[in-house]
Amino acid sequence: MSISEKLKKMNIVLPPPPAPVAAYVPAVTAGDLVFVSGMLPLRDGKLIYQGKLGREVTIEQGVECARVAVLNALAVLQQQIGNLDRIKQVVRLGGFIASDEGFNGQPQVLNGASLLMVEIFEEKGKHARAAVGAAELPLNAPVEIEMIVQIS
Amino acid sequence: MSISEKLKKMNIVLPPPPAPVAAYVPAVTAGDLVFVSGMLPLRDGKLIYQGKLGREVTIEQGVECARVAVLNALAVLQQQIGNLDRIKQVVRLGGFIASDEGFNGQPQVLNGASLLMVEIFEEKGKHARAAVGAAELPLNAPVEIEMIVQIS
Amino acid sequence: MSISEKLKKMNIVLPPPPAPVAAYVPAVTAGDLVFVSGMLPLRDGKLIYQGKLGREVTIEQGVECARVAVLNALAVLQQQIGNLDRIKQVVRLGGFIASDEGFNGQPQVLNGASLLMVEIFEEKGKHARAAVGAAELPLNAPVEIEMIVQIS
Repeated sequence: MSISEKLKKMNIVLPPPPAPVAAYVPAVTAGDLVFVSGMLPLRDGKLIYQGKLGREVTIEQGVECARVAVLNALAVLQQQIGNLDRIKQVVRLGGFIASDEGFNGQPQVLNGASLLMVEIFEEKGKHARAAVGAAELPLNAPVEIEMIVQIS
Repeated sequence: MSISEKLKKMNIVLPPPPAPVAAYVPAVTAGDLVFVSGMLPLRDGKLIYQGKLGREVTIEQGVECARVAVLNALAVLQQQIGNLDRIKQVVRLGGFIASDEGFNGQPQVLNGASLLMVEIFEEKGKHARAAVGAAELPLNAPVEIEMIVQIS
Repeated sequence: MSISEKLKKMNIVLPPPPAPVAAYVPAVTAGDLVFVSGMLPLRDGKLIYQGKLGREVTIEQGVECARVAVLNALAVLQQQIGNLDRIKQVVRLGGFIASDEGFNGQPQVLNGASLLMVEIFEEKGKHARAAVGAAELPLNAPVEIEMIVQIS
């Protein structure tokens, strides 16, 4: 099954790739690696939640943020490489979670991204990752996710 | 126009590459990728500003910090690869901005770095990036920037 | 001297590779680069210290955390590539240090990792790195370290 069929089966419609919020590009290809910029949980140009985990944002909302950020990353990748079937391996996910004092559930939040990637790409979706609690994130986003994938 | 001519035209003189502040090296080459260590806004061995954005450091000062950190990265790259014309593509910029509670202008600050890279390297300077608010940075620096470039 | 002989001489016994704390894998190989997930200072499944530098955790304890995280990364690498002698170059270390307000000794803490890598791998162990102060880390860990190595 192709990735586009898989997404359809999962009832996932990729959004239009979000425009960068500043002076950079959404993705760069170097050899067979594609580096995707830090993606925020933007939907139709607006953050779906704002604030920090452990304060304004619940874990469930954080998980949804991670999923939306990943869909934005996939939209960017589709634009960058033309076809998501070219992804040979998801290599690394970097997840920054805006964290209030004492919040240590970064892994659970980032699982929203990781589980979705594995559901879509199966073996090819299993990635290395780092989950880190940020003091603040752009636009007061709760989650920011960057990605490296290997293409064929 | 070569990069050194471009820098001259922009009245930019690269500093001597800063010595690492600890037990590591300024850059490592792996294949055609060069990984530059996190650079601080050091000039003549001293931080040009100290503290956090949203408190001691204004956005304008943060932008200047980002520019100075990038010039240090370019000085390191020149030392590492001999000639900045070998840069085929700037791949990724990682920008950490020391952020006080409620400061969410990380993208504007990091634009100091991104715009400078694009001004110098034009199309080759357009990079992926992640902008993240750090709780604290080494030496109380307001900004730390790391970089991956692809060389030919 | 092989790396295993070197480790024996240094009285270092690698631990069993820690299981990921969530939905990802400990390492991914892409071409000749191996990306190791963010490693915590876990020993026998428990953090050796908890809390932040500048508050519950001293610099000496932070250095020990960095060393333990690196040993976990090496255990993961051994499992991933079979033999640590295949490491041609340690490319990049990313070190996140959970930092209380006003703690700026991230480089000293991360040196626990960097010096150990250079002691074990000598020239091949000299890496680029970024040291960043995190607001919070998973499980209330004081230190998280991720790594990229080049293999032959």
